Amino acid sequence: MKNTSQGLNNKDSQGKWSWIQGGVNAPQGFKATGVKGKIRYSDKYDLALIYSEVKAQGAGVYTRNKVKAHPLLLTMKHLENGSAQAIVINSGNANACVGEAGDEAAWLMAEKTAQMLGVDPEEVLVASTGVIGEKMPLDRVEKGIEKAATQLLQSNGTMEDAHLGALAIMTTDTVPKEAACELRIEEGVVRLGAMAKGSGMIHPNMGTMLGFITTDAMIPADDLQVLLREAVEDSFNMVTVDGDTSTNDMVLALANGQSGISLNEEDWQEFRQMFFAVCKKLAQDIARDGEGASKFIQVQVEGAGNIEDARKIAKSICGSSLVKTAIFGEDANWGRILAAAGYSGAEFDPEKVDIYLGSVLVARAGQGVNFSEEEAKKALMNKDINIRVVLREGEAQATAWGCDLTHEYVTINGSYRT
Amino acid sequence: MKNTSQGLNNKDSQGKWSWIQGGVNAPQGFKATGVKGKIRYSDKYDLALIYSEVKAQGAGVYTRNKVKAHPLLLTMKHLENGSAQAIVINSGNANACVGEAGDEAAWLMAEKTAQMLGVDPEEVLVASTGVIGEKMPLDRVEKGIEKAATQLLQSNGTMEDAHLGALAIMTTDTVPKEAACELRIEEGVVRLGAMAKGSGMIHPNMGTMLGFITTDAMIPADDLQVLLREAVEDSFNMVTVDGDTSTNDMVLALANGQSGISLNEEDWQEFRQMFFAVCKKLAQDIARDGEGASKFIQVQVEGAGNIEDARKIAKSICGSSLVKTAIFGEDANWGRILAAAGYSGAEFDPEKVDIYLGSVLVARAGQGVNFSEEEAKKALMNKDINIRVVLREGEAQATAWGCDLTHEYVTINGSYRT
Repeated sequence: MKNTSQGLNNKDSQGKWSWIQGGVNAPQGFKATGVKGKIRYSDKYDLALIYSEVKAQGAGVYTRNKVKAHPLLLTMKHLENGSAQAIVINSGNANACVGEAGDEAAWLMAEKTAQMLGVDPEEVLVASTGVIGEKMPLDRVEKGIEKAATQLLQSNGTMEDAHLGALAIMTTDTVPKEAACELRIEEGVVRLGAMAKGSGMIHPNMGTMLGFITTDAMIPADDLQVLLREAVEDSFNMVTVDGDTSTNDMVLALANGQSGISLNEEDWQEFRQMFFAVCKKLAQDIARDGEGASKFIQVQVEGAGNIEDARKIAKSICGSSLVKTAIFGEDANWGRILAAAGYSGAEFDPEKVDIYLGSVLVARAGQGVNFSEEEAKKALMNKDINIRVVLREGEAQATAWGCDLTHEYVTINGSYRT
Repeated sequence: MKNTSQGLNNKDSQGKWSWIQGGVNAPQGFKATGVKGKIRYSDKYDLALIYSEVKAQGAGVYTRNKVKAHPLLLTMKHLENGSAQAIVINSGNANACVGEAGDEAAWLMAEKTAQMLGVDPEEVLVASTGVIGEKMPLDRVEKGIEKAATQLLQSNGTMEDAHLGALAIMTTDTVPKEAACELRIEEGVVRLGAMAKGSGMIHPNMGTMLGFITTDAMIPADDLQVLLREAVEDSFNMVTVDGDTSTNDMVLALANGQSGISLNEEDWQEFRQMFFAVCKKLAQDIARDGEGASKFIQVQVEGAGNIEDARKIAKSICGSSLVKTAIFGEDANWGRILAAAGYSGAEFDPEKVDIYLGSVLVARAGQGVNFSEEEAKKALMNKDINIRVVLREGEAQATAWGCDLTHEYVTINGSYRT
């Protein structure tokens, strides 16, 4: 189950762009790496740096949880001017709910990074993930930053280095999550790179995880912000693992312009598609790597009256504990799917709904049909499960991603902190 | 763990009223019983009848799920005139999402019950619980009604009979849930009886389960409806097991006036307290019997700005998969509690929040304190877990009830239908 394959229906039209390797280091002028800083465990990559050789335009989308981690507040402040040059990220400690010591720790991480990389501290963004409510082990974090910065400055921004960064931001993730692609246009090549982490405490409403996107396109911060927000709505916000929205989640994007290319209207549309595709791929990777997951679930809602209703229904089904356990048990329990749509808050007529499990029609017009239990079972034995819900209310559609709820999820989360 | 003890802090002032035995048969003029109808299993009580010797005033509160089961729609219609004389309830099949056949089955259940008991079919209410999307085995259900009605008419409305009714409405419940009490006033004695079922697919927003309340007080239907709705808000709607709101849930109340007593204003307040206490007890019993639960969780929120915010926070904490698994793992992970409050949608300042696990203060002003892990562990080793959250925003408070999330929950729900 645990792999980074692109999953179901990854049919994004690729037009002039294509997937490449290199993660966040794929675009020109970016260097990222990761080191073992012993922040929580003695032998885990846990400190990552992303550095742009020049100041970049920056954008961010943040958790909607009222409880916001200290680094998140600092990052919001540092991005107010729309520019940034480096990001420092640690796993193992969320630096959340520890009071002034937390604000200070976030600032000291920015300052140390700035000093090592020779940039302004206010151009450094900070992200943390891990246990809430414990003070940061600042001495180890600072040593980690020294080590990472030294390694980074000696490196050439290779794909191996980007990979170490992706490893360093993992917590209960079982695989690193990276993507990169490039757009070839008349003026040359524009690249996009990304990495993300997320496995538990994943739920719609932004947040959901940490994501970092780099590009060498020339994009003003305001445009980058709009693009990022729209892409997140359609990707990271459509993932649900356990319904818990974290205190630390954010997605940051840096555009350093080092390709020298400012996109015209037509190419911007291509770039936009590529940007959305990268976010969707990482969102799917996160769902696939959900804590304890044995199956990846994709819920496609079609024919909704409007996009909000489509999203509500898709997320409600994807987040239902009863649907998730039924999928785990390979039980074609479509009644739970319809019931989850019913309490989503969306407007629709239950008596017009068709439901498919894989290609098997299991309910028509809100009622069960005499489907072959054998075929349904076969569809449910796959690792990738596709649930399709057709509403016949309108034209809107949405897709959500999640995973099943397993014994392993309970085991992992019964003993995360201790 | 599985018992019907009254749980944590059941400190309801009992004034002139007291707990008694007898379930729904405790009030005068009610007869209820249950039989084995082989509806789904060959050897389970699965069909219950509640009958009032005279027409009673009736009230109902129903699921907010857009997908509503067929018997629920019939019951809403039959209660439009505010009166009813009997309730027929089956477990094993929800009679939901099966189209016209479902409406017909619900009607035939009412008609058969009416015929056997010699009442008007429109005075019969119908409730079902079980698997969604399968047609009712009508022949077996009708035979069950015959058997139950015969048994009921020969009985004297004993507590044993009430108990059989409580057994018959169970699905994955492991214990029957009953309560009864009486109010002694100058004019005489007024009694209240109740039974409920609910174990999975339990979540705030009405619904949540099936509940049936009987009383021999003289109460006009309109007053009964207001009382029932208020009591449900404070009890059944504060229970969450898995976040799934069912298609079938309802709470019905019948007041047949057979005590001959119409309560004056002061006694009405006593009666009201008793009514709330009965609903709360059953709500707690349901949480305690949550599918796969090993621990009962009570979340008390104090000092909220308003009652809605207090309820949102209590329910959000109680429903958090991460809090539930931490409790299962006996891990004093208070960060997850604060995070769940944070995404509840309620207004509050996280930096003013104190959190207690049992009597152990684990966070003050939104930050961890140096609590004794040993003491916290001891508090968490109890079967009954009390989480107290103090907000310092205002005077409002609310309590929610739930249970931990265990391997057993996954096992039960991975194989419910098949």
